[in-house]
Formats: sequence, C-alpha cells, structure tokens
Amino acid sequence: MRKTLLLVFVVLLQATFACFGQQSDNSTPAVTNITGAGYPRILPDLRVTFRIKAPEAQKVQLDLGKKYDMEKGSDGFWTVTTAPQVPGFHYYSLVIDGVAVADPASETFFGMSREASGIEIPEAGVDFHLIKDVPHGTVQSKRYFSTKTNSWRRIFVYLPPGYEQNPTKKYPVLYLQHGAGEDETGWVKQGHLDIIMDNLIAQKQAIPMIVVTTNEYVIRDIGAGYNTESTNHFMDLFKDELVDVIIPFVNQNYRIANDREHRAIAGLSMGGGTSFRIGMLNPDKFAWVGAFSSSAFRGTNGNIFDAEKQIPGIFTHPEKFNTQLKLLYISSGEQDHSYEYTKKTIETFKEKGLKLQYNYFPGAHEWHVWRKALHDFVPKLFK
Amino acid sequence: MRKTLLLVFVVLLQATFACFGQQSDNSTPAVTNITGAGYPRILPDLRVTFRIKAPEAQKVQLDLGKKYDMEKGSDGFWTVTTAPQVPGFHYYSLVIDGVAVADPASETFFGMSREASGIEIPEAGVDFHLIKDVPHGTVQSKRYFSTKTNSWRRIFVYLPPGYEQNPTKKYPVLYLQHGAGEDETGWVKQGHLDIIMDNLIAQKQAIPMIVVTTNEYVIRDIGAGYNTESTNHFMDLFKDELVDVIIPFVNQNYRIANDREHRAIAGLSMGGGTSFRIGMLNPDKFAWVGAFSSSAFRGTNGNIFDAEKQIPGIFTHPEKFNTQLKLLYISSGEQDHSYEYTKKTIETFKEKGLKLQYNYFPGAHEWHVWRKALHDFVPKLFK
Repeated sequence: MRKTLLLVFVVLLQATFACFGQQSDNSTPAVTNITGAGYPRILPDLRVTFRIKAPEAQKVQLDLGKKYDMEKGSDGFWTVTTAPQVPGFHYYSLVIDGVAVADPASETFFGMSREASGIEIPEAGVDFHLIKDVPHGTVQSKRYFSTKTNSWRRIFVYLPPGYEQNPTKKYPVLYLQHGAGEDETGWVKQGHLDIIMDNLIAQKQAIPMIVVTTNEYVIRDIGAGYNTESTNHFMDLFKDELVDVIIPFVNQNYRIANDREHRAIAGLSMGGGTSFRIGMLNPDKFAWVGAFSSSAFRGTNGNIFDAEKQIPGIFTHPEKFNTQLKLLYISSGEQDHSYEYTKKTIETFKEKGLKLQYNYFPGAHEWHVWRKALHDFVPKLFK
Repeated sequence: MRKTLLLVFVVLLQATFACFGQQSDNSTPAVTNITGAGYPRILPDLRVTFRIKAPEAQKVQLDLGKKYDMEKGSDGFWTVTTAPQVPGFHYYSLVIDGVAVADPASETFFGMSREASGIEIPEAGVDFHLIKDVPHGTVQSKRYFSTKTNSWRRIFVYLPPGYEQNPTKKYPVLYLQHGAGEDETGWVKQGHLDIIMDNLIAQKQAIPMIVVTTNEYVIRDIGAGYNTESTNHFMDLFKDELVDVIIPFVNQNYRIANDREHRAIAGLSMGGGTSFRIGMLNPDKFAWVGAFSSSAFRGTNGNIFDAEKQIPGIFTHPEKFNTQLKLLYISSGEQDHSYEYTKKTIETFKEKGLKLQYNYFPGAHEWHVWRKALHDFVPKLFK
C-alpha cells in the first residue's frame, strides 16, 4: 500500500507542522486554511503572511482587494506579509504570472463567481459566529425540481435544535439570499448561518425558526440574456421561483407556520436588493423584510434610487406599508461602497414617514458585516 | 448599484455563453464546471478541451494524471485537447509556470489533500448515479464534539425518503469512509451518495437505510506524529473515534436499529483498508463489511499482506468469521494499481474457506468505480 501510505504520510507531515504551527512570532494558521496548511498565518497585530512554492514563476502577487507583490526566496517560496487587516472574512486570490487562482492552502468558498480562497481575520472578543457547546441544529441540503428553470436546483435548510423532538410543532421561516457571484452555499459556509442561529436560540435571543438559503440565479439557469436595464427582470424571475416553487416545496417538506406573519425575507448586497423588492411588493407573502448592505439604494448623480417608481406608494402611502409590514430592516457596513446611499435612503424613508429599523456595523462590503446584520435582524423576527 | 450590476453582468454573460455552449464540434461544458463556465468542454469521443487565459505565463500544463502541455494563442488563452478520456470522475490541476492549482472554471472537491478541480466524463447509458424524478432523501451536515480529539468535527448523514414521515421507524446504518487526502465531503460531492441511494431505494433494490460519512484523520486532529510503520495506529485511532464517539452520537440523534446486524462499515482506498480492519476485528459491532479498491491488501515482494497477522484467525479459524459476518465484500477497478493484489487476496481468502462476495469494475483508482462499488454493495445489506 505504498502509494496510499505515501499520500497519508505527506498529509500527516503537514498536519504535524500545522499542529506545531505556533511560531516564535506568535503567528497562527488562519482557520480558513485547509487542515494541515501552515500558511496563510495571522500575526497578533492582524498582519498576514501568505506563502506559496513557485520556483519557476516570474511574478507572484496576492490580491486581497489591494494587490501585494510577493517576494521570492532562494527556496522557491514566494511570501508577503500584509498590513494589518480589518477583522472579518475576506476573499482573496494568488496571482501567478498574471493568473488569479485560489490558494491551494485555503478552503474554497463560492464567491467572485468561482470557487475562491477566503481568509478569516478574527475579531477580538466577538464570538457570536463561533461554534459553542450549545444545542446544535441541522443544515440540510435539499434538491428540488424547478418548473420555472426545468432543472434540478438546490436549497439549504437550517432546522433549529428540537425540530425532530417536537414532531407536531410548526415553525416560522426566514428566506435568505446571497450576493452577486455567490450561491446558496454562501450563508452556510461564509456566513456561519447555523452557528449564529444555534447561539441566538441557545441564548433565547431568537425564537426557533427555519432558515432557507436560495440561489437567485434563475435567469442564468433558464439561459436568458441580460443587460444592465433588466435588474428588475432578474429579481422578478427569482420572485416567481421563490413564491411559486421554493415556498410550496418548503411547506410540503417541513412543518411550517404557513402565513405572511410567519414568513420573512432578507439578503445581502444583490440579495438585499432582491429581498427588499420582493418583500415590499408582496406584503401578502412576507411581513418581515431585511436588506443588508444592498447596493440597490444607489441612484444616479449621487441621489438615491427612485423609490416611488420601484415601490409604488412607498412615499405617497407609507401608512400602507407601516400597517402591513411587521418589520422593515436595513443595514450597512460603515466602510461599504454604498454606505452614504444607504444612510440617505434611511433618512428619506424616515422623513416620508416609513417605519423601519436600521443598524450600521464597522467594516466594508464583506461577510463578517453580514453575519452581524443577521445576528441583529433575527432576534427581531416573529415576535 | 454599478459595482453589483457589473458583477451580475459578467456572471450572466458567462451564463449566456454557457447556455449557448453547444458548439459546431458538438462539445459541451463538463457538468463539473461552475455554472456559466464554457471550458473544460467534452467532445463526443470523450476528448476534452481545457482552456485558461494566462497572457503573461511562460508555460501552462494540464495535469490529468498524465501531463499535457497547453498551447498559447494570440488571444492569451492557453488550450489543449486531450486524448479520449475514460468515463468517470477525475481530479485534475492546471500547472501555471510550475504551480499546480485548481482550474478557476471547475467546482472544487476535497481531494489530493486540497480543494481540487474535478471533471466528470460521462459514461454512455449509465445513470444510476444521476438525479432522477424519484423521492429524494436528505443530506444533513452534523457537527459533533469529539472527546478523542477535543475538537468539533463533522459527519454527513443521509436520511432516506420517508424518514420524517415514519416517526417511529428505526433504520439500519452504513458507516462510509473516504480515501487518503479526502474527507467526509467525498462520498457526498464526488460520490453522489444521496443520488445513488435515492435511486436504489426507489427501485426497491436497497432497503431504506441511514448512511454516515466520516473523517478518518483523527491522527491529524490530535496532531500526533506519524511514520509509515504506524498505519494500524492511524486506523485504530479512527476506530476509537467511530465506536466511542460517532456511533453513540448517531444513535442519540437519529432513529437507529442499534445492533451489529443493522450496522455496516465500508470505505474506499485508505478507507477500504480502515473499514476492513475495523470490521474484521470488531464483529460485535459490525456484521457487514465492505472494502472498495483498498490498497491494504498489498504486501511486499509481490505478495499480499500478512492477513493472519493483521486479522488473527482469518486463515486458522475462517468459520468464526463466516458465522459472525453477514457479508464481507471486496471490490476493485480492473485498472486499479492494486488490482492484482486484490485478486490474489480474494483467491487466497476463498482457498482458506473464508466466505465473501466480490466484484470488479472497469476503471482505475477513481470515484466512478467507487460509486459502482457502493451501488453493488448497498443492495446486499440488511437482508
């Protein structure tokens, strides 16, 4: 069994290395590394050292939003140590002679429209998204056939602790959307959805609920063309998939409190815009709406979007929304590229008499901000 | 919302391209591509064209077991069309100026001890592993705390269709192990475990059962050292994890027929050796044992392994195993590097009077062969 042994051997060598991975500089391997990978390593001041063996490469860069040139050592390893990083989850690529690829040392996360590397920069004292010794729910992968796309599609379903032990209990549902270039895996892998829910439920901050993560790219699955004028078309195709296919499928397969008062919709970035539009235009379906770091509030010439045109009555009859909606929630990172537009939108909504709750979190357009938004949003639901 | 729109736009351009991806040469994108990726493309004769944009690279190769040099076009795209490929699932890498990386156009699969590219080469007329319009079970991701490794670990649990609708029914369980350099995701992603089970159960070829996929790298999680002498130590550490931690956890969280007659163990390659050893040495725990494409039957100097030393009594008291085991199953691909050893082992076992069932499948040391082994093994269980 030489071949196998050799492979096991190599794997375990890495493992042993990683296990004794704490170095004299007190750096430790990122938790987003594959098991056994010693790099990237995070230093106590949150600088990060990246490393890859590429003896024949002419130029190797790290693209972490900002591009860093890596330096080649005589051992053929290229390394770079970045400036201190903002805590959170950051996608990154290694650029090898001009080609942006995933770091072989990193787990992959579907983002940037491909399987991408991601690095978790820990935030001191913040652990709402970290696994604890509390009752754990279940994440289920469910395939369903879509009569809209005529293809098999997938959702992930979070079932809270106790779902199996209470065979007659019916649960409210939150439908949760990803961002552009991501998919239904995002909230589970990058978002730590199940851990955040488990912790909130254990602390009695949130009531037990089911959470469903979807894939918004219906337009891609039906192979329709696309142009920048047809954002609404993109969102409305997903609305039909959600309302006509996904919700009935979930109702059929799980014990659901099946009415608008027990149904919420939320999402991040592109999914924030989608969830805002679907929620506001379909109050008969959703009583709780959340838009996290949505770029949909951006208009032209520094103005916000044309809300009254997009959501007829939102300014002329705010009372209609105020009575129908149990919650309209908007959030943004304080360093988000749409932060100013989101703030303007919130101020305008308030001036117009629209009831809403909102919050801002330190950080840019990234997953740790969206985890915080979910952690802030979920306790407000179904109460 | 320009940034978001731009990203959506790019994603959907790819999508449109992929949708009209059928080209004059009748090639089609591999099903293992990320949605929207036009390459790699499979030709009708199973040659495959790979393609990547790398205008600044000096040398780009495809490593598909065999290495192919790719050719640079004036447009900066490197391409290669391979010889016709054997149907099945094959890991591959792109080698960019000497660095083996995952193809950005491919989904990733944990194999070769990292997130690797994989390509599915379709086998004409074979669809036992393809999704059909039959009742579908559920794949659950479950976190558990291991008192052996003092860390949170993960299993995947396949629940057959009807599990939720039959709240008093107890089910038999198959514990399924991965190969070297893989993890608990292997049988789900590469193996199509749930689809194979759904199809077998729908055709009444297999009885409804629960299947649990594990992670064998306990030795890595506890950070123990390793040397090629200690294969048994590696396997025995996993045996303790499985028997003392995983099985009790599964019994506690699912409706399990909790006795040896309703408990099976099987695995592929390294996991085949592990499952063979654990199953044969613990007949009080497992009545059904399967070893797929195991390298553990290899000995030295062209001989098979020292079976009597590894499994005391297997040759001197075969009747003991014949009465205790409901099934000992061994399989191999006909092009597997251990095929001859496996055949020799099976012949020797038969000569010694050991009862077993076995089968060989066309193909090498790869996942499609292991899907076929599972599809052949599961209908024999718990009957």
